[in-house]
Amino acid sequence: SQQIQFADDMQEFTKFPTKTGRRSLSRSISQSSTDSYSSAASYTDSSDDEVSPREKQQTNSKGSSNFCVKNIKQAEFGRREIEIAEQDMSALISLRKRAQGEKPLAGAKIVGCTHITAQTAVLIETLCALGAQCRWSACNIYSTQNEVAAALAEAGVAVFAWKGESEDDFWWCIDRCVNVDGWQANMILDDGGDLTHWVYKKYPSVFKKIRGIVEESVTGVHRLYQLSKAGKLCVPAMNVNDSVTKQKFDNLYCCRESILDGLKRTTDVMFGGKQVVVCGYGEVGKGCCAALKALGAIVYVTEIDPICALQACMDGFRVVKLSEVIRQVDVVITCTGNKNVVTREHLDRMKNSCIVCNMGHSNTEIDVVS
Amino acid sequence: SQQIQFADDMQEFTKFPTKTGRRSLSRSISQSSTDSYSSAASYTDSSDDEVSPREKQQTNSKGSSNFCVKNIKQAEFGRREIEIAEQDMSALISLRKRAQGEKPLAGAKIVGCTHITAQTAVLIETLCALGAQCRWSACNIYSTQNEVAAALAEAGVAVFAWKGESEDDFWWCIDRCVNVDGWQANMILDDGGDLTHWVYKKYPSVFKKIRGIVEESVTGVHRLYQLSKAGKLCVPAMNVNDSVTKQKFDNLYCCRESILDGLKRTTDVMFGGKQVVVCGYGEVGKGCCAALKALGAIVYVTEIDPICALQACMDGFRVVKLSEVIRQVDVVITCTGNKNVVTREHLDRMKNSCIVCNMGHSNTEIDVVS
Amino acid sequence: SQQIQFADDMQEFTKFPTKTGRRSLSRSISQSSTDSYSSAASYTDSSDDEVSPREKQQTNSKGSSNFCVKNIKQAEFGRREIEIAEQDMSALISLRKRAQGEKPLAGAKIVGCTHITAQTAVLIETLCALGAQCRWSACNIYSTQNEVAAALAEAGVAVFAWKGESEDDFWWCIDRCVNVDGWQANMILDDGGDLTHWVYKKYPSVFKKIRGIVEESVTGVHRLYQLSKAGKLCVPAMNVNDSVTKQKFDNLYCCRESILDGLKRTTDVMFGGKQVVVCGYGEVGKGCCAALKALGAIVYVTEIDPICALQACMDGFRVVKLSEVIRQVDVVITCTGNKNVVTREHLDRMKNSCIVCNMGHSNTEIDVVS
Amino acid sequence: SQQIQFADDMQEFTKFPTKTGRRSLSRSISQSSTDSYSSAASYTDSSDDEVSPREKQQTNSKGSSNFCVKNIKQAEFGRREIEIAEQDMSALISLRKRAQGEKPLAGAKIVGCTHITAQTAVLIETLCALGAQCRWSACNIYSTQNEVAAALAEAGVAVFAWKGESEDDFWWCIDRCVNVDGWQANMILDDGGDLTHWVYKKYPSVFKKIRGIVEESVTGVHRLYQLSKAGKLCVPAMNVNDSVTKQKFDNLYCCRESILDGLKRTTDVMFGGKQVVVCGYGEVGKGCCAALKALGAIVYVTEIDPICALQACMDGFRVVKLSEVIRQVDVVITCTGNKNVVTREHLDRMKNSCIVCNMGHSNTEIDVVS
Repeated sequence: SQQIQFADDMQEFTKFPTKTGRRSLSRSISQSSTDSYSSAASYTDSSDDEVSPREKQQTNSKGSSNFCVKNIKQAEFGRREIEIAEQDMSALISLRKRAQGEKPLAGAKIVGCTHITAQTAVLIETLCALGAQCRWSACNIYSTQNEVAAALAEAGVAVFAWKGESEDDFWWCIDRCVNVDGWQANMILDDGGDLTHWVYKKYPSVFKKIRGIVEESVTGVHRLYQLSKAGKLCVPAMNVNDSVTKQKFDNLYCCRESILDGLKRTTDVMFGGKQVVVCGYGEVGKGCCAALKALGAIVYVTEIDPICALQACMDGFRVVKLSEVIRQVDVVITCTGNKNVVTREHLDRMKNSCIVCNMGHSNTEIDVVS
Repeated sequence: SQQIQFADDMQEFTKFPTKTGRRSLSRSISQSSTDSYSSAASYTDSSDDEVSPREKQQTNSKGSSNFCVKNIKQAEFGRREIEIAEQDMSALISLRKRAQGEKPLAGAKIVGCTHITAQTAVLIETLCALGAQCRWSACNIYSTQNEVAAALAEAGVAVFAWKGESEDDFWWCIDRCVNVDGWQANMILDDGGDLTHWVYKKYPSVFKKIRGIVEESVTGVHRLYQLSKAGKLCVPAMNVNDSVTKQKFDNLYCCRESILDGLKRTTDVMFGGKQVVVCGYGEVGKGCCAALKALGAIVYVTEIDPICALQACMDGFRVVKLSEVIRQVDVVITCTGNKNVVTREHLDRMKNSCIVCNMGHSNTEIDVVS
Repeated sequence: SQQIQFADDMQEFTKFPTKTGRRSLSRSISQSSTDSYSSAASYTDSSDDEVSPREKQQTNSKGSSNFCVKNIKQAEFGRREIEIAEQDMSALISLRKRAQGEKPLAGAKIVGCTHITAQTAVLIETLCALGAQCRWSACNIYSTQNEVAAALAEAGVAVFAWKGESEDDFWWCIDRCVNVDGWQANMILDDGGDLTHWVYKKYPSVFKKIRGIVEESVTGVHRLYQLSKAGKLCVPAMNVNDSVTKQKFDNLYCCRESILDGLKRTTDVMFGGKQVVVCGYGEVGKGCCAALKALGAIVYVTEIDPICALQACMDGFRVVKLSEVIRQVDVVITCTGNKNVVTREHLDRMKNSCIVCNMGHSNTEIDVVS
Repeated sequence: SQQIQFADDMQEFTKFPTKTGRRSLSRSISQSSTDSYSSAASYTDSSDDEVSPREKQQTNSKGSSNFCVKNIKQAEFGRREIEIAEQDMSALISLRKRAQGEKPLAGAKIVGCTHITAQTAVLIETLCALGAQCRWSACNIYSTQNEVAAALAEAGVAVFAWKGESEDDFWWCIDRCVNVDGWQANMILDDGGDLTHWVYKKYPSVFKKIRGIVEESVTGVHRLYQLSKAGKLCVPAMNVNDSVTKQKFDNLYCCRESILDGLKRTTDVMFGGKQVVVCGYGEVGKGCCAALKALGAIVYVTEIDPICALQACMDGFRVVKLSEVIRQVDVVITCTGNKNVVTREHLDRMKNSCIVCNMGHSNTEIDVVS
């Protein structure tokens, strides 16, 4: 059986599949080889892969080298992508228009760590437009859009990120954002808590003077609560993760679309008539179920929370135990937030060619290790 | 505004965009550059693009050169794709099992012209398994999966097709299928009517001895009817296009999925809350509307047939004139089968960044020329 | 288990339950006893039930007695119902406006036999407005809206029908329409074929001079085909039943609404989370399934036609054998057009309080007799 | 235009229409006159309407007169209704089974004021089975199912309620529950706050000794908060209204079904193709919109809360101002919880025959007075 892992917690529907078997690899390749556009993209990845960005000397058109990206030459291309993203992000754009004159963020020195995509680029450039100084790294080693990072660098943002960076690169980039002569961050915008953790551990004197932390992920919020309980969170922190716009929109509405998109791009599977089991009926699960039901899949739900289980039932899904349906389903989707929802035993009993997909935040829902 | 053209009349959802503006190009690239799989595919396209397959000498592992494909070395890879496709095509596979012993197609010499994909490969190899001899070319210059063609060639099928072949190559490949010393086709399997037309015009003596034609496209069927009216169709021909499985399944159910897939892959647009107008409420339009409605789009329909218009209305779609909504919509989808449904004037009045997509068979629904 | 039978083949969603057990009776009564309107209606039924309309002398305000209805005094009330129905029947109303001057039906002497409801009254009065003379009886002994019949009688239509008439009354009414001194029908508008059969058998000389028959039911059309095969159909007959407006609108869209309405009114059951099996996935079954799925029921389908079964599958319904799910379902709905779809054995194995509902035309889908 | 008012906040979907014009009256009558069951119910209402239950002497089969209902003779009939309701209320029934032996509610003297229906009867009898003593009145003068009240009385519950009681009767019934020699309530179960208010005002010494109040309506909870703010709520009170089961299930899932049921029973309208505006996109509005969309209505939403408006948009509904669409819609549904959402001016501009329906709790959403 195939195993695919998405992490879909940003508007950009980043996908970072890991440990994919040969089979799904071949499917994906078949997918992109029929897509006449794909080839155009290949040059962004193939050219000089051997040299690490850390070892390259790059300079933007204004002579600045205050960044580290894959290839500054892709800037023009990334700029177009950012411009397209701006068209769908009218709230930020109108905020720019309204407040640009007053520079309400003047004095803010923001260090950020998020996925780096056309959409987050619009956010970063809005912060700059409102007067903030920003230094940015990636919260995920796979999700950076290199050409967007290049466009940011070209525009003068101190960005340190590239797609496929190593674990070591990851922390090096974060450090490059924080550890700067003559500049000290006073605000943190984090997704996952790694940046916050780094500042807290490595630069305690900087941490104490932080005026505010914004954190948008479950994991990061969890870590902040732990810090707070231990009495060590001396800084105001804002939980963006639990906001209704995050819960309903990011999780429900975005996952409703990204589950289809992710499965189609990686497996080319047709949903009509397929039997699917969705593990977990939170907002993410609700979004997945709604989308799959609408496209004609026969959807089962596993859920341990009685209220959510009742909702699944009232929404027309049979609530089952995973072991009851594991033999018959064509697709298994996990969105529980728990560990090892799909066990070795489940994997053994699946049909050949059953697709296993993780929509949850962590990549431990499927016991891949075993 | 962006213009994208799909042709989605096969299970494999082949896409062959033409005349795409820079903008949608950039979107597509952004899409694939975030897809870690895409790069794997790139080698299939990039290597030795300069040399035309017509000029290359290639031999499969059994020493045969009776084919012309991009790169015979991709055969192993294409074989895996075919094997995956077989898993979803249980009808053909069980047909093989049931009838393989009897070779019911012994004596059949089939010349075929279809999209060449993993799915049609399963069909071709089934025909061979049942005893037929097959020679095959592509019905579309963009849609061939090169590695699948290679796998067919390696398996001994006389296949003449590659992705991105020229108009001249296209007819050369068809001719190579028909014009063979010591072998004369007695059956035609066609998609679009080009092969049938070529045999009819160039090899009238072969045409007269054809035992049957199977045609699966609207266009090809139309051409056969014209031939028949003119009294020149001296051969039995079967209209597969109007079969219920084609109309309901290919058109309704497949388009329900491919409209989402196609738009996502090329534009990364989110459907929730978008205003969409679908031109035409036949089976294709019904599929598109159902899918988009399910994902939270606000869908309008244009339709001139009163029954179809009433169906759209009873299905919950406002039936409008295109000019009424053209200023406000985010996406325009054509599936009428008519010419110039979207005119120059419509294009002028659209919102900036409105997406225009053709789901119809012909690429004339949008007046791109103007 | 409860057994309920609908016949839902007209826009008015007439219900004529038969052989209902005590249990469902009690539910229905509970339903209407909480409905403050119902009591208002009771006077229309209760007053002078004992005297058969056949024995009453009634005269309309113009002095005519050329009709036989329950109570001519209800005419004003029925008129209001007809006026309300006219608001949703804009096609007939605009036909009246367009053609009233020319009286295109002058000379037509139409004898009709349909359900008599506000909606058919609009049809009958349109025929009259276009110049036809009409005599009308009911095609069903339960479905007549007495106050509507009264309004027609008051308006001068020769109508012979009342709710709850006996089998004998039924044929007497039909005969009163046909057998008139000095008036001979030249057209038949029939629903079910009883009127046509009566004229054919009893008044062969009238039958021969009929200029046309319009028949709108499966049963009636079937009988006409038999007559035709026997070489005895000497009159042009039009099959309205198979028109797309009947198949798609009457069956698909109307049943989509009436299945909910019928079950709610008779059982007060909530659909969310209920397990339902729908026998048959024709247009009626498709309508039932769509509606129940939308309200959160878990829907299974039984189907013997492979194409329809595949459609059910692609629409997201598990296709099963009735015996597989009969133990677990809360509702069984038949819409196959066959006999004894639900057998004695099925009835025995159902859950206590399982609801059994016939949406098909004939009342033989459920083996009630056993 | 017609005006209909539902109050749909209980599982039984009680309807108490007020100030309905003649037109909708006639529709309803037409509905029930075609329903062969309705007549059976009429005897429950018609018989001895003239004598007030307060003046009748009634005794149950055990000789007790400790109740006041319409007609104790209907008890057997009501019992059957309760038994049917029990089948869908498995949680309470299993609670009975589990705890009946221990009598955990021994010593509880509960005075209750709710709708009195088969479903609440199951609740009341469960409380009794667990050891409580109960006295009960109706929270609404229209909603009592008389035969259910009779069954409760026959079973020994002190119930004081009948359908169509006067305002004066209403308070008299409440008082009869509280004001009993030798029995003093120690718990209150209320729906709307009238009983709580009565005890608080008239029997302050009883109120002080109440051990707990359970309140299940928005209004009642609002009144309790006011009492609490004024420092006068000396008793623990539990807000059942805001529980997830009430918000999601009562409001979302129940309204999804009752909006259809209510409109069908009162107006016989077909939803397919109708234009509907739903005012308010809270849980009730979400339920209404989902149901109407599923049946093919074209649904618009008005909403002032930006998050709810965005949800409506992402769910595929055009968010509009009421005045924008008031001319074109066929149905207006209010579920805002506000006053005068539909104003005199809106009523004036509606299409003839537009249906106006209140799904909100209060009956002031439509400015009927003007």
